[in-house]
Amino acid sequence: MGKIYEYQVLRVNLSDGEISRETIAGENVKKFLGGRGLASKMLYDEIDPKVDPLSPENKLIYASGLLTGTAASTGGRYMVITKGPLTGTIASSNSGGFFGAEMRFSGNDIIVFEGKAEKPVYLSLKGDKAELKDASHLWGKGVYDTTDMLIEEFGDEKARVSCIGPGGEKLVKFASIMNEKDRAAGRTGVGAVMGSKNLKAIVVKADEKQVEYFKDEMMEVVKKQTKTLKEDGVTGEGLPALGTKVLDNIINSHGAYPRNNFQYGTFADVEEVSGEALVEKGYLQGNKGCYGCPIRCGRHTKLPNGQEGEGPEYETGWAFGADCGVNDLNAIVQANFLCNDLGLDTISAGATIAAAMELYEKGYIDKDELENGPELKFGSSESVIYYTRQMAYREGFGDQMAEGSYRLAEAKGNAELSMSVKKQELPAYDPRGIQGQGLNYATSNRGGCHVRGYMVSPEVLGVPEKLDPLELKGKPEWVKIFQDLTAVIDSLGMCLFTSFALGLEDYTEIANAGTEFDFTPEEMLENGERIWNLERQFNLEAGITPDQDKLPKRFDEPLPDGTFRGSAAKYREILPEYYEIRGWQEDGWISDEKLSEMGLK
Amino acid sequence: MGKIYEYQVLRVNLSDGEISRETIAGENVKKFLGGRGLASKMLYDEIDPKVDPLSPENKLIYASGLLTGTAASTGGRYMVITKGPLTGTIASSNSGGFFGAEMRFSGNDIIVFEGKAEKPVYLSLKGDKAELKDASHLWGKGVYDTTDMLIEEFGDEKARVSCIGPGGEKLVKFASIMNEKDRAAGRTGVGAVMGSKNLKAIVVKADEKQVEYFKDEMMEVVKKQTKTLKEDGVTGEGLPALGTKVLDNIINSHGAYPRNNFQYGTFADVEEVSGEALVEKGYLQGNKGCYGCPIRCGRHTKLPNGQEGEGPEYETGWAFGADCGVNDLNAIVQANFLCNDLGLDTISAGATIAAAMELYEKGYIDKDELENGPELKFGSSESVIYYTRQMAYREGFGDQMAEGSYRLAEAKGNAELSMSVKKQELPAYDPRGIQGQGLNYATSNRGGCHVRGYMVSPEVLGVPEKLDPLELKGKPEWVKIFQDLTAVIDSLGMCLFTSFALGLEDYTEIANAGTEFDFTPEEMLENGERIWNLERQFNLEAGITPDQDKLPKRFDEPLPDGTFRGSAAKYREILPEYYEIRGWQEDGWISDEKLSEMGLK
Repeated sequence: MGKIYEYQVLRVNLSDGEISRETIAGENVKKFLGGRGLASKMLYDEIDPKVDPLSPENKLIYASGLLTGTAASTGGRYMVITKGPLTGTIASSNSGGFFGAEMRFSGNDIIVFEGKAEKPVYLSLKGDKAELKDASHLWGKGVYDTTDMLIEEFGDEKARVSCIGPGGEKLVKFASIMNEKDRAAGRTGVGAVMGSKNLKAIVVKADEKQVEYFKDEMMEVVKKQTKTLKEDGVTGEGLPALGTKVLDNIINSHGAYPRNNFQYGTFADVEEVSGEALVEKGYLQGNKGCYGCPIRCGRHTKLPNGQEGEGPEYETGWAFGADCGVNDLNAIVQANFLCNDLGLDTISAGATIAAAMELYEKGYIDKDELENGPELKFGSSESVIYYTRQMAYREGFGDQMAEGSYRLAEAKGNAELSMSVKKQELPAYDPRGIQGQGLNYATSNRGGCHVRGYMVSPEVLGVPEKLDPLELKGKPEWVKIFQDLTAVIDSLGMCLFTSFALGLEDYTEIANAGTEFDFTPEEMLENGERIWNLERQFNLEAGITPDQDKLPKRFDEPLPDGTFRGSAAKYREILPEYYEIRGWQEDGWISDEKLSEMGLK
Repeated sequence: MGKIYEYQVLRVNLSDGEISRETIAGENVKKFLGGRGLASKMLYDEIDPKVDPLSPENKLIYASGLLTGTAASTGGRYMVITKGPLTGTIASSNSGGFFGAEMRFSGNDIIVFEGKAEKPVYLSLKGDKAELKDASHLWGKGVYDTTDMLIEEFGDEKARVSCIGPGGEKLVKFASIMNEKDRAAGRTGVGAVMGSKNLKAIVVKADEKQVEYFKDEMMEVVKKQTKTLKEDGVTGEGLPALGTKVLDNIINSHGAYPRNNFQYGTFADVEEVSGEALVEKGYLQGNKGCYGCPIRCGRHTKLPNGQEGEGPEYETGWAFGADCGVNDLNAIVQANFLCNDLGLDTISAGATIAAAMELYEKGYIDKDELENGPELKFGSSESVIYYTRQMAYREGFGDQMAEGSYRLAEAKGNAELSMSVKKQELPAYDPRGIQGQGLNYATSNRGGCHVRGYMVSPEVLGVPEKLDPLELKGKPEWVKIFQDLTAVIDSLGMCLFTSFALGLEDYTEIANAGTEFDFTPEEMLENGERIWNLERQFNLEAGITPDQDKLPKRFDEPLPDGTFRGSAAKYREILPEYYEIRGWQEDGWISDEKLSEMGLK
């Protein structure tokens, strides 16, 4: 093993305005890689897991992955790590685009924000200069305007901006952080933490064109992996052609495409809103790629009214579409653009509206509470757009919805109508038709989530091999490996979509080529396991106990339609085996021995 | 001449709750026929034309036409006459459906509302019983709910309701009065007057199935006229097939289909929003007809989200569509339903949004003023729906828009960007490509309006004969005849659409058959002229002076596109001749001699 990799940290105390620099070198980089892993370790070491997520005592960490800004294919991602206000768990959301690479080029591998600014500020990173600047004129502005204004102010059109919109300012529990306008660190409410600190944005432009980390040494591996990605059916064909919305028809035919707040598993109007429809109806203008990405799954879209942006992604289209019973693609695209501009997570925004619709239709919400807003009825495209805006600004009934579906449903006396895990809204796959995904949902370290282990890949898409989606045997092992491997990919700063074509050996190879590490594949996967255990331990200490490893009651009832009609979720039957494979106690807690073994104690 | 027809009047003093009955018999019925004519005479006699339209001193008169409730084809209309808050002129708006006939059957030919109720009330007419009832529980409710609740309360599902929505309650200057949910006495803000009186609704059900006025005597004429209507190309084919939206393609090809607040005269996306598109895209469910109507131009439509209603009509589709640059039929249908439920005139609502869009895009409205609402940009379907709701409830910027485009544009320092005449928004025909229509707009007694003389008929559609739309010669005479004849048709309680197939002789024949009058066609047209002069005199006394007989300055500039590119409005060249033909003074005032000659003094 060669030299230990170094991380340059910029520490910004917002309370007193002090900015300092430090270097992380040594075992922690080797054990936690970077990004999600390394920053989670920092957060765990630096804050009390019981802290109020929206208090000055919480910290907000921007972190580049180990390979962010290198030549690695898709190696452009940054992560935001903090304690999340939606779930109370450790939160780490990552985002693509170009901001992450630019941050790395600027020499700020990790930025830690502490405390709370008295007035709105933003962080300006120009070359090696770091300054906090007044952001009063930006407060209240949407993401699109904020981005344009900051680039103008900064005086370099190549500067990159990561910022919050009104959603984050108003402490919406599922506010996102956006970069390059349409790219989101979307989930778990990281934008609200940023808002609670009066931090509006970071704008960055490095002096040098690019810090060429190990470029020569790694190019041969990069070329090979790029070729693999280009030749793969998913990353080379499906995603470039239709983006993530290639999934609409696939998941709907599979019978796991949730409709009307997961009351059903199929959507008859899917053809009106699918990825294919986005092309046929003229919304799609072209593809967009992130830094270093050969896949280019991003959708550059345009509304008939001339408004342009990116998306919707599969999850977004579903959240505002089928989950709300809406078959109006125009409204879905509008709601997506709105979320990007207002800084809201699209999954939680749409799913919260869906839950509100069920609560309203079942009489748990009075019409009077809606003030003068439209009725929350499934299928109402007007409601979807109206309440998205209301939530972001916490206006009218939107103020209650801004707390997310769980707190809303709980306040209305029926928490079980929130389709969430650990208070975070589930994405677009019904676990009753994808049993491994159900176990993954229940055990995800950031609540209802599909990108902490995407079991849809083997159980539906057949990658890397086809598994029976209803079979339980073997699934705990699969879930563990997917979770750990995902922690690796995130921590490297690469895109999860590469995993359709690349495997553990590939990630190990590119990591070794891009650094002076010399990991074996086994060591690499153990790094992922270490990160997973660290996150779990943070959550346990935060009070998120193992009894929260569960799905909403709805999934104990059988699916009423589709291929898997009659099937209920069976994750409880395999949860003990999952704990065992994880080496955890029977009750789901992590023993001191295991923590020691993982190097966490 | 036979017996003078009698009118039964119900007089309701809302201030003290007193209800009384009286009979009008004698010369006034002969001279003013009924409906619009007779009620205008009553208003002129009973109020000071200078009164504040929204004060208790104004009166609100519901009036059935001379033939309303008889067997006459389309003879089901009622009119609401008052001093209008949008224009300051005499206002009379009429509506179809079945309410008018039911009101007539109940023996209340005319209802006069005076004063102002202390608390919200509605008038219940059950058989011969008239009662004011508490409407506190209905205040704030939309038209759809109000209608359903009143019918339920009334205890007879055949009862008919005419009511206001939140728009009228909030005194929106262009609030409508709605009956049977989707039928509107739409223009000039009659709903605001009703709201200012704390009068929410009238619900009526007659005892007898039908008062059969002269049925036997008139059936032969009715049969003949019904046959004529059925065989006519417009009333027998075009209107039944596509409703008023048959006009989209016709007026757009003509080059007089205003786009973006009348900045252009053609709309490239017309096929996305036309009457044909309404069918092809699956919105149309079937036709609906009013009382006694063989045409059945009403559109029963359904949104993909399941919401059902009527419309949009041609003018509505244009106002929320091309005038706002919007090519999204779904949004247009939604905005139409919203207006019906909230009780807003669709033309003024859409055209006010269009004016606000131009004001915004040209910098007369600041983004901050929109509070957190979407930007008012041409083409934004979200804005169209959002601000329709905001206007009705006077929320946010909608409060300023609720004053109508003229007052809004004036407050923003550029009144000329309101495309209105006498402060009422113009409908969907650019006068630069239809010169007679321009003169008609300028001289209409209720401001910008197409149903006070529809010169589009001869100048575009060629009915009763094709006139050159750019020619000025002869147009003043045509305009006078169309205005006078329209006053007759309205006052008879028949639908203006019959005039595509019927002429002065037909109206005279059916009026004589349905009553014991014995008018000659010349006398009948003179009745129309008398009504026109009465309305004009009311306006003059109200302070609406002849210098208001004008169009916005925009029409002095040539049309930039379409067939009539380069053509400007030339109504000024023929206005003197119009005054002369009218027998008015050169300065547009009416001499005492003319008033005497008309029997108005």
